[in-house]
Amino acid sequence: MEFSALLTSAGINIAVCVLFLSLYSVLRKQPHNFSVYFGRRLAEEKFQRQDDYFSFERLLPTAGWIVKAYWCTEEEIRQVAGLDSVVFLRLFIFSIRIFSITSLVCIFGVLPVNYHGKEMTHNHIPAESLNVFTIANIIEESRKLWVHCIALYIITISACILLYNEYKYISRKRLAHITGSPPNPGHFTVLVRSIPKSDNELLDDTIRNFFVNYHGSSYLSHQMILRKGHFQRFVNCPGALVFFKTRYAAVVASQVLQSSNPMLWVTDLAPEPRDVYWSNLWIPYRQIWLRKLATLAASVVFMFVFIIPVAFVQSMMQLEQLKKMFPSFRGILNKSFFARVVTGYLPSVVLLLSLYTVPPLMMLFSSIEGSISRSGRKRSACLKILFFTVWNVFFVNVLSGSVLNQLNVFTRPKDMPTMLAELVPKQATFFITYVLTSGWASLCSEILQVYNLVYNFFSKCICCCQQNTEYVYSFPYHTEVPKVLLFNLLGFTFAIMAPLILPFLLVYFCLGYLVYRNQILNVYYPKYEMGGKLWPIMHNTIVFSLVLMQVIALGIFTIKHSPVATGFTILLLVGTVLFNEYCRHRFSRIFEAYSAQDVIELDRDDEQSGRMQEIHQHLQDAYSQTPPGEGSSRSGGQVPIELILEDPAQEASESSQELCDTVQEVSEAHEHIIEEGKAHSV
Amino acid sequence: MEFSALLTSAGINIAVCVLFLSLYSVLRKQPHNFSVYFGRRLAEEKFQRQDDYFSFERLLPTAGWIVKAYWCTEEEIRQVAGLDSVVFLRLFIFSIRIFSITSLVCIFGVLPVNYHGKEMTHNHIPAESLNVFTIANIIEESRKLWVHCIALYIITISACILLYNEYKYISRKRLAHITGSPPNPGHFTVLVRSIPKSDNELLDDTIRNFFVNYHGSSYLSHQMILRKGHFQRFVNCPGALVFFKTRYAAVVASQVLQSSNPMLWVTDLAPEPRDVYWSNLWIPYRQIWLRKLATLAASVVFMFVFIIPVAFVQSMMQLEQLKKMFPSFRGILNKSFFARVVTGYLPSVVLLLSLYTVPPLMMLFSSIEGSISRSGRKRSACLKILFFTVWNVFFVNVLSGSVLNQLNVFTRPKDMPTMLAELVPKQATFFITYVLTSGWASLCSEILQVYNLVYNFFSKCICCCQQNTEYVYSFPYHTEVPKVLLFNLLGFTFAIMAPLILPFLLVYFCLGYLVYRNQILNVYYPKYEMGGKLWPIMHNTIVFSLVLMQVIALGIFTIKHSPVATGFTILLLVGTVLFNEYCRHRFSRIFEAYSAQDVIELDRDDEQSGRMQEIHQHLQDAYSQTPPGEGSSRSGGQVPIELILEDPAQEASESSQELCDTVQEVSEAHEHIIEEGKAHSV
Repeated sequence: MEFSALLTSAGINIAVCVLFLSLYSVLRKQPHNFSVYFGRRLAEEKFQRQDDYFSFERLLPTAGWIVKAYWCTEEEIRQVAGLDSVVFLRLFIFSIRIFSITSLVCIFGVLPVNYHGKEMTHNHIPAESLNVFTIANIIEESRKLWVHCIALYIITISACILLYNEYKYISRKRLAHITGSPPNPGHFTVLVRSIPKSDNELLDDTIRNFFVNYHGSSYLSHQMILRKGHFQRFVNCPGALVFFKTRYAAVVASQVLQSSNPMLWVTDLAPEPRDVYWSNLWIPYRQIWLRKLATLAASVVFMFVFIIPVAFVQSMMQLEQLKKMFPSFRGILNKSFFARVVTGYLPSVVLLLSLYTVPPLMMLFSSIEGSISRSGRKRSACLKILFFTVWNVFFVNVLSGSVLNQLNVFTRPKDMPTMLAELVPKQATFFITYVLTSGWASLCSEILQVYNLVYNFFSKCICCCQQNTEYVYSFPYHTEVPKVLLFNLLGFTFAIMAPLILPFLLVYFCLGYLVYRNQILNVYYPKYEMGGKLWPIMHNTIVFSLVLMQVIALGIFTIKHSPVATGFTILLLVGTVLFNEYCRHRFSRIFEAYSAQDVIELDRDDEQSGRMQEIHQHLQDAYSQTPPGEGSSRSGGQVPIELILEDPAQEASESSQELCDTVQEVSEAHEHIIEEGKAHSV
Repeated sequence: MEFSALLTSAGINIAVCVLFLSLYSVLRKQPHNFSVYFGRRLAEEKFQRQDDYFSFERLLPTAGWIVKAYWCTEEEIRQVAGLDSVVFLRLFIFSIRIFSITSLVCIFGVLPVNYHGKEMTHNHIPAESLNVFTIANIIEESRKLWVHCIALYIITISACILLYNEYKYISRKRLAHITGSPPNPGHFTVLVRSIPKSDNELLDDTIRNFFVNYHGSSYLSHQMILRKGHFQRFVNCPGALVFFKTRYAAVVASQVLQSSNPMLWVTDLAPEPRDVYWSNLWIPYRQIWLRKLATLAASVVFMFVFIIPVAFVQSMMQLEQLKKMFPSFRGILNKSFFARVVTGYLPSVVLLLSLYTVPPLMMLFSSIEGSISRSGRKRSACLKILFFTVWNVFFVNVLSGSVLNQLNVFTRPKDMPTMLAELVPKQATFFITYVLTSGWASLCSEILQVYNLVYNFFSKCICCCQQNTEYVYSFPYHTEVPKVLLFNLLGFTFAIMAPLILPFLLVYFCLGYLVYRNQILNVYYPKYEMGGKLWPIMHNTIVFSLVLMQVIALGIFTIKHSPVATGFTILLLVGTVLFNEYCRHRFSRIFEAYSAQDVIELDRDDEQSGRMQEIHQHLQDAYSQTPPGEGSSRSGGQVPIELILEDPAQEASESSQELCDTVQEVSEAHEHIIEEGKAHSV
């Protein structure tokens, strides 16, 4: 690919982006689209419905939304969208910072060195092959490689400093969030599973006796988990929620081994009420480990089997292959513009489309796994999708060739650095266009909400039905976090090899920051709070990206016969691993457990202010298994939980039992809401 | 090697064993050897010193000790030597059981199939090559391989059933041990490290304030850890022992995260007083993770570097090489008997001798690692030596050839099964002789206590000094457990390939059972109690051996083109891994933490019986850092801790600081003991 082709591609994408963003700024002003673009605000009824009068201004693209999204403070975002949104946006801030530094170093330091890497007569720059800008242009045993080594050091050290500061900042935010938010019933409640059955005692009594006996001073009450269904109402009672008088007692009960048989009386701190994944509470505890192993195996198998169709489709997309398969299009394909579009675009579009099938499946795997909370399920799905994305987007494309060859690399870990060093630079062009197409386009698609827009258009304007539009969506962290982390990985791995990717990435991160801020403020409604628990995943993935960057650099320095640079890179690698270990020791437990000091202080505050009594009363009905229309909408001001969708595909993966049970209840609730809605509009 | 050569080797070894055991039965009757062979009994002064009269019977070999060792009950052993000895002997019982089954199956099922594996004219059995008895004799695509597959199933399933029962049995023993033993100060005490320094407060006050504030109802008192030395007496107090009123409170304080900074106020349940490794309590907590990583790296490097001298010495021991190097011995070496001895014996003797250097070094690594207890250090050393032994005895010998070739196998994990399948059967002869020499001989050396015997002889009869003989040794689990586990590994991996190894192994385990019972009863004195925590290591290693057996079988079935057997083996492999996962979930936490139920019951018993007051009083002076001669010998009936040696080599690895500090104190104590000894003998 020539430099001019890259510019063409970039030009097309910039035009498309500007077009889509302008379209968005017009569409969002149309009242019948409010439910698509202001879901959260509508749901909270803070957004004033403007009367449906027509003005010319409504058809003009404006940039006001960018200004609004930019000037909103972090504290405001935390209040309306929770800590998780803040953490997600911090990932963008980190990315913008580190890739600004990286761009500076690599564009002004590494790029000229690459360009003048070997003695050759240079063409006019637009006609120059992209390879001239990559590390492939440096001759063997070149002294210029120390520039790359220094760049590697600057990037790694800056990234580590930034990462450490982010971890510290987010830890502090998390602690402030725990201590600052209103009392959470989850902090007082322990989920007990695998309760031994006694012949001469009711299960209810067994639970009461156990906790009165061993936690008598702090036990408050308990609530059996009831499995409801047409045939088995109030039977198979396999666990219970046990309420304690203080947070500290609940933390202690959840962390200390209860019985001398570790498979009995298993305790976990309960999720907050909206976060409980009820249908999974019915799974017998002794199945959980087996389910985890099985889903792990299934995910790994899926990850590897997925290569085959993608590789097939991608090889089909080669120009020569296309010409053979569609002889009638040969004329068009011979024209260089179309050829560029096809080779530059189609492979990544195919990849993008096939990737859409992954999240629902991974969400299904995570449901089967047996997580007790929706947030746990989402985190698990996020991890699975992350592994999947990094493997299937990065590695499979880098190791392109026959499917079997790809797998062989991983059976010879010793040869990996040199093999990656040979293969990665070759794919620089593909990944630069991938950033342009998949990256930029996904942001446009995100802000336009194409699926919902079309759905809304048909349901409102064509079918004239209204009820479905009251749904709001919760933020799909499990698909968005892996996406952003993938671009981080691409940035780091290609930084010193093909620095041309960096400006495009930087644009992606800046635009993404604005787009997601806007979406978080206007569209998504937080269904539950993960308390920033996604950050350790992000941190570890970024450290993995750094290590991968160093491993590939190691391979390159080996290939180019530069032993000194190799030695320095090994040193850097060891340093990075040590940094990660330190961070793990310093921070990770903050994201896993509550500290005695914090919860005792909270308990004392509540006791001294006399709020404890009130909290205890509220506890009893916080975890309601009654029909959601009655139960959860009581907690005034919040959107009823059944109206917040994770995402359409995921809802399909819910276990059928739960669906059967709730269909009737939800439909009743809907009728109620529709009636209210009609009364409102009249 | 021919069958007759194997019989020669076995004959020599049986003769040597009988000789040594007879020698032992005579030597143990000589009064001046009592300190060598009855160290534990002497130390406890239960052994009645017989007057030094001469009788002819003292020179006759007898088998009375075998009868005594055999008839002693498990409960007696637990009482005199602790739960760890019981667990160690259970490993022998397990081994005897499983290898009885394996021998039955393989000698009567697999061996004849191997022998008639291909159509050939068989020699007279003694002249038959040993290869005829191995799986190498089976032709490709042979239908007889299903015998091996069935044998594999029988061995694995029996092993899993026996392992499960052992785990259950030992768990129950451990729980009974915890609830049944006298109150242990360690159960009431929490070691707190990394206490934040405050400018306007003494460290002592900081600790008191923290625990009174957050654990006010259960906090009893605390004791600073003082670093003593010539220059820094009572300074640098980096941690403290905090005493609680109940066991439950201590368990809670040790398991719950204390501060929102996980690197501050780090709590661990304290080891029992005799088990505390004082010099490691002075290590700043923030160094621990770095020390662990560094020692891990050092151990791995040592493990790999160790190959080089061993491979060199072993290649030197080849017959042709020897003839070249020592032309004068050519005449002797040409004689077949000497040739057999040299090729059969010398390599394993060299290996054995070089392995003696390993335990002190690994013990040193484990000391540097920063374990707070002596038992933790020993467990860690045990694990390191185990990895080292399995790698350097099994893998390095199997993958013999150039050192670089050996490493290459591990860089291609996919080819490992077939590679192992090709290489392992070739080494059958070596490992059969290894069992004879290293296995049987190590038992003889163990029971004879050669080192101590010689030392005792010189110090008593030549130098006429007496003081050192009062020392007793604690059982060297860290060297003996890996040894026994290695023989398990050899048994499993060679069971279906070269079943001739099994009878020799069975003899080793039976003899070992008797020898170690005798030694535990008579020689070793338990310095501290690990509470059976070695069992999970043993269990995991045996499962690893099973998996290795299956992986090698997988390779063999692949080489012999038997896809059905390969399929069934993969099924078995998955089953074994699932079994191990289940055991981990079911049992492993029992060996890591105490359950609320157990400790609360214990607390209640003590409170109701009024013993609690007494325990609290005893707590204050249980952890004494005063000179050992005064401090620890108070706890009447027990042997003073400074007179129990881990083993001579290990003592050299103690940190120099501790040695400097204690030399003076110990010498004072010695003088005291010598004076007492003299008074006694007069």
